[in-house]
Amino acid sequence: MRVLGIDPGLTRCGYGLVEKTGRKPVALSAGVIKTSPDLEVPQRLAEMQAEIRDLLIEAQPTVVAIERVLFQVNVSTAMSVGRASGIVMAEAVNAQATVVEYSPNEVKQAVTGWGGASKEQMEQMVKAQLNIDVPLRPVDAADALGLALCHLAHAPTAAAIAKASERGKISS
Amino acid sequence: MRVLGIDPGLTRCGYGLVEKTGRKPVALSAGVIKTSPDLEVPQRLAEMQAEIRDLLIEAQPTVVAIERVLFQVNVSTAMSVGRASGIVMAEAVNAQATVVEYSPNEVKQAVTGWGGASKEQMEQMVKAQLNIDVPLRPVDAADALGLALCHLAHAPTAAAIAKASERGKISS
Repeated sequence: MRVLGIDPGLTRCGYGLVEKTGRKPVALSAGVIKTSPDLEVPQRLAEMQAEIRDLLIEAQPTVVAIERVLFQVNVSTAMSVGRASGIVMAEAVNAQATVVEYSPNEVKQAVTGWGGASKEQMEQMVKAQLNIDVPLRPVDAADALGLALCHLAHAPTAAAIAKASERGKISS
Repeated sequence: MRVLGIDPGLTRCGYGLVEKTGRKPVALSAGVIKTSPDLEVPQRLAEMQAEIRDLLIEAQPTVVAIERVLFQVNVSTAMSVGRASGIVMAEAVNAQATVVEYSPNEVKQAVTGWGGASKEQMEQMVKAQLNIDVPLRPVDAADALGLALCHLAHAPTAAAIAKASERGKISS
């Protein structure tokens, strides 16, 4: 199972691709998509859409795990993140991926065992689980890898089904 | 100048296409894009995206005028409308259209002369300006035509520039 975590945003859209075929998950790529702040919002969204589409073609994820916006944010932030996440969702469906959403607390809980973990604790645990010994910068990339790990932790059944289906394909 | 008004939403996305070449604007089409409520949000967004793309290919608008979400709405509504409007914006840019946003009050002010006009007053004025003598149903279509009329009222300069540029293209 290959999971692409995405922390959506117009200014910074973090992504992290994790594959789990054996017992340990492996990070395949991580980074941040940025759009030119000099452009108008619609142009930036179109730019982000093109980048996300390229990323999905390259990554070929089974699942796209997107950060869910919390209700504590203000309306302006919700609108802005909504615009970016709507585009990610539609493009993920177009790329035949399953879309799931997790809140920041669910990600922290799944990755560190504690919903109130700090950014530093999250980064440490993401690095430990993925056997990465360099700093994960920018932090959006670490968050996105955390989203992918969260899905792998939450979906053992889904993973088992996907694996069984892949074995089916190979043997048929 | 051909303006496509869009009142974005996942459940109901109103659209109205208005052309103004001479003195009077003419309605070319209006309607509502709906997505299946039985589907998950990402699937519905992908469905809406495909419909919007088809609509833009057919309508060939110079400008897409989108309803701006007010800050009075709650975070959940802002997220939901944000998702739909983000997709509309990106697709409009992909279709080479200029994207503009107007608040409901700006539309009411431009179409009826009063920012506090009722839905009924809006519909009456949209029908009068476009010389339509049948009821505009559903109401989302009237709202979308109102957005297009609002842009035509707000942008005499933009219209003049676009017209001059079109004349330039024809004569060259």
